[in-house]
Amino acid sequence: MYREQIKVLDCTIRDGGLINNHFFEDNFVREVYRAISAAKVDYMEIGYRSSRELIGKENFGKWKFCDEEVIKRAIDGIESETKLSVMIDVGRVHKKDIVPAKDSVLDMIRVATYVKDVDKAIDLANDAADKGYETTINIMAISKALDQELDEALAQIESESKVKAVYIVDSFGALYSENIDYLVAKYKKHLKTKEVGMHAHNNQQLGYANTVQGIIDGCNFVDATIFGIGRGAGNCPLELLMGFLKNPKFDIRPILDIISREFLKMQQEMEWGYILPYAITGMFNEHPRAAIALRKTPKKDDYTDFYNSFLSTEVE
Amino acid sequence: MYREQIKVLDCTIRDGGLINNHFFEDNFVREVYRAISAAKVDYMEIGYRSSRELIGKENFGKWKFCDEEVIKRAIDGIESETKLSVMIDVGRVHKKDIVPAKDSVLDMIRVATYVKDVDKAIDLANDAADKGYETTINIMAISKALDQELDEALAQIESESKVKAVYIVDSFGALYSENIDYLVAKYKKHLKTKEVGMHAHNNQQLGYANTVQGIIDGCNFVDATIFGIGRGAGNCPLELLMGFLKNPKFDIRPILDIISREFLKMQQEMEWGYILPYAITGMFNEHPRAAIALRKTPKKDDYTDFYNSFLSTEVE
Repeated sequence: MYREQIKVLDCTIRDGGLINNHFFEDNFVREVYRAISAAKVDYMEIGYRSSRELIGKENFGKWKFCDEEVIKRAIDGIESETKLSVMIDVGRVHKKDIVPAKDSVLDMIRVATYVKDVDKAIDLANDAADKGYETTINIMAISKALDQELDEALAQIESESKVKAVYIVDSFGALYSENIDYLVAKYKKHLKTKEVGMHAHNNQQLGYANTVQGIIDGCNFVDATIFGIGRGAGNCPLELLMGFLKNPKFDIRPILDIISREFLKMQQEMEWGYILPYAITGMFNEHPRAAIALRKTPKKDDYTDFYNSFLSTEVE
Repeated sequence: MYREQIKVLDCTIRDGGLINNHFFEDNFVREVYRAISAAKVDYMEIGYRSSRELIGKENFGKWKFCDEEVIKRAIDGIESETKLSVMIDVGRVHKKDIVPAKDSVLDMIRVATYVKDVDKAIDLANDAADKGYETTINIMAISKALDQELDEALAQIESESKVKAVYIVDSFGALYSENIDYLVAKYKKHLKTKEVGMHAHNNQQLGYANTVQGIIDGCNFVDATIFGIGRGAGNCPLELLMGFLKNPKFDIRPILDIISREFLKMQQEMEWGYILPYAITGMFNEHPRAAIALRKTPKKDDYTDFYNSFLSTEVE
């Protein structure tokens, strides 16, 4: 598939940081930036920007805050055409901590939100846009969004925001290809002046397939991570996506190389990938938190009991 | 997805046997049969039927031959509505080693063939059908089949054979969803009296996605293996497929249970799954043999060199 408008965003450090509370070594981040740049990936998301007074600073590594100086040191001296982004969460950042783009190494700010907080997300995104950044709004937990609320949110983003793209974020890894078709069509119906983005999770081994489906349906912003790293099941693997995209500017080899050198050993220390409790939460369209909790107990591989626990949930 | 005609075939022992030359312990096969039966899977393929004088017997375990007595012992006393099948390969079995169905515990014989050998496959399949078995023809390496040859082969199978289903076998894990659409449409155009089957490999994490795509397109015979076991990248994971299929007769829990008890430890000893050399052969639409060879060398994780080796192949 070759369509010049397709932009690939690597969120290895940002999404991978959800596994280790953003405590990556500086040198690892630097190596990832070097590989992403050599592969000619369009964007790299290097972490979150958060405000210490809102979330505390004790429990998080530096990539939860992405101070400008920290980023500058990580990328210093590496030749790159890759644009840099951070993610900000509604309620976890003060506008004052987003400096004007001209004083920043960042090119893009992506606002993560639930559909119910879309007003706050638009406000944050417009503030960043006014400061000179490219912006996106990423609607999380989309598999739980009610149709009517999502329609309203998309209409509002279209009319009130300055974002370049609005993402479908399959936080629970619950979507099938037919759901992707449905959601992209809905997004495109509302978003006449913005691109549609896809951020897929890999709970049911559909992260890559759903990203490809999104591309076929017209998504032009797509997220991936090296070797699929990410909390729980992880994400669409960047190396597979680069095998599919035929834009001649991309080079898969720096990605293969850093997997050999860094990610194989990292996976010995940090867990992600095809792990059945995450597949099960995906099947039930649930947040992975129960699976994350299970994996810290001696019952971590008792899959049948875990499956049954979702059947017996009473709702009245 | 619920369509009563959909039949699921588990080929855990047959395809998994390609990893260990079919040397599974009797008790393991028995436990798999027990789980598959409890899960109400329609068919279980318990191995190959081969003729010892054609392939030698020294290098293979008993599930390469599936003598009737061997199967009988494995299933003895287990309540089951699951039908049993074996696969036979063109050139590796004499007709005399297929006893009449009335004297066999088997219900189905599946003939694996390359498109070029379809005449031989039809001959073998008709012999088995005449002996009272359900039959299928499974066309391997379909991603390399030339359109004209495949059209001829399908027309010939339709007019000359008595098979129930003809399979798309993505031996190289090279197909994308758009290829599935194309192939299923082609199969259905020719096969007016037979079902279309799907056997997908997982090199690019598309085994499950392509099987679902096949089902959406109209395939009614679909293969899967427990925990995706299979040579190299493995296959469509049965537990994911059962999460997608809504036929109330299926029960996923015996499959989850046997993964907990047997397959996690088995994966410590036998390699399969998302392993980059297999992803790379899939991207290049090549047989995995180069990846299998690489994995036995000290360079098993030198992915960039391996990738480059496909670029430099000269064809004149």
